[in-house]
Amino acid sequence: MKLAVIGVGLIGGSFALALKQAKAVSQVVGVGRNKANLDIARERGIIDSVAADPASAARDADLVLIAAPVAQFPAIFGALKESKALITDGGSTKRDVIAAARKALGKGIGRFVPAHPIAGAEKSGAAAASAELFRDKRVLLTPLRENSKESISKVEAAWSACGARVSRMDPDEHDAVLATVSHLPHLLAYALVHNVAKRNNSEQLFSIAAGGFRDFTRIASSHPEMWRDICVANRDQLLQQLKSYANELGSIRKLIQKGDGAGLEKLFTTARDARNKWIRSS
Amino acid sequence: MKLAVIGVGLIGGSFALALKQAKAVSQVVGVGRNKANLDIARERGIIDSVAADPASAARDADLVLIAAPVAQFPAIFGALKESKALITDGGSTKRDVIAAARKALGKGIGRFVPAHPIAGAEKSGAAAASAELFRDKRVLLTPLRENSKESISKVEAAWSACGARVSRMDPDEHDAVLATVSHLPHLLAYALVHNVAKRNNSEQLFSIAAGGFRDFTRIASSHPEMWRDICVANRDQLLQQLKSYANELGSIRKLIQKGDGAGLEKLFTTARDARNKWIRSS
Repeated sequence: MKLAVIGVGLIGGSFALALKQAKAVSQVVGVGRNKANLDIARERGIIDSVAADPASAARDADLVLIAAPVAQFPAIFGALKESKALITDGGSTKRDVIAAARKALGKGIGRFVPAHPIAGAEKSGAAAASAELFRDKRVLLTPLRENSKESISKVEAAWSACGARVSRMDPDEHDAVLATVSHLPHLLAYALVHNVAKRNNSEQLFSIAAGGFRDFTRIASSHPEMWRDICVANRDQLLQQLKSYANELGSIRKLIQKGDGAGLEKLFTTARDARNKWIRSS
Repeated sequence: MKLAVIGVGLIGGSFALALKQAKAVSQVVGVGRNKANLDIARERGIIDSVAADPASAARDADLVLIAAPVAQFPAIFGALKESKALITDGGSTKRDVIAAARKALGKGIGRFVPAHPIAGAEKSGAAAASAELFRDKRVLLTPLRENSKESISKVEAAWSACGARVSRMDPDEHDAVLATVSHLPHLLAYALVHNVAKRNNSEQLFSIAAGGFRDFTRIASSHPEMWRDICVANRDQLLQQLKSYANELGSIRKLIQKGDGAGLEKLFTTARDARNKWIRSS
């Protein structure tokens, strides 16, 4: 079984390492834009060889994983048009990815089984990859009506071999849910750090910031290009979530303006209880 | 040396434990509203005895720590009016606390040396207290012109004995800085969890939420009453920070609406770099 990984970063590299460890693949070829990163991937045994482009990587591969920032997907799907390999991806958005795949693959669209591993870290690159990244994490498949049962099973088996808990979801629902629990929080964290960083007294502010600020902003250390692409790709859902959040902040602002301690305490208690319930159950 | 702790929670309990461990105090008396919590404090050796009210606790104490939610400070200062003990506090806001102290203590105001330990956790109560909570954490003193050098030194020595790094700051500056790097992030985290929790599909949303959401919202598990009081006490500064943040979100919204990938990437990169620089230096 030969795997081609397009984009050997945290996600692509971890997928290769996990499948090698599970003995589900015997050979991995990698493609990437950054030579230094590919060298690291080779040194770490993540990939066995480097291909010049996605088309040559996929030529005799059984499975292709696309794990590049989502803006690159249209060109990559275009390059995979002639390949016969089964394709999955690690893209954080699904509607735009599927649209790009349909456009490029045409009648070959059945070979593409979209996936989104809900695992990541603020670290990126092959150096951060780990065979354990997906262990007990969720992977959402958003299968297409053109996918055969066999193709879906094979892709599901690959993600399961990484230790992930695989489930299925409608692509539009996926994008709405992820906008709320992932894309929006990333924006909010970037916004806070940016707001602090641009001030004249930013050094003083950072010097006083403590553990709460550190954890709140951890995801603001994420990959800027990847998140740029997600924001553009999932624009409509994200704008809707931003609006809902701005309304929520507006309600809280009014409670503070009125000095409505009881209202604030009720809201904080609802939030704390909901979060604690979630943490206990997860 | 006898210490009185008014409010034997995470902060008060940790202060007592740390000073006992440093052999800076020999006896600790506690006051609190919650009998079960005081029982835990006694069982854990945090306090040696319980007093019925702040006035009796302070009667023959050398040092009093007020570590209750800030809305209770006016009544507590009122009860400490006749005491001769040196007083410090753990309040997260300083302007309102100082105003309450001035009003209640009158000419005795010099006995109060305000402090704010920048340490905390989403856990609360005596059960969560630890002698190590303040180790290498910052404590901001906001001394008053009425404080004698000796009083300031004694309070500084007590916090230093807890392992904290003590520095001094103007009270108004303190409240502005903390509104930005602590109070606002707490609000933002509570707002996100509340926004998710109130939806019809909240269960599904939480089931997909992962590590990024968990860390971003950690501070939404904080003590609702404490944060209610902070929001009310530091209202003006907090509203100003909320406005600044809402403007920041508005700028980001415009970038997304325009599909301005370059603008988004630049903002995310500025934020990531600023955060990474801070993390490396802290």
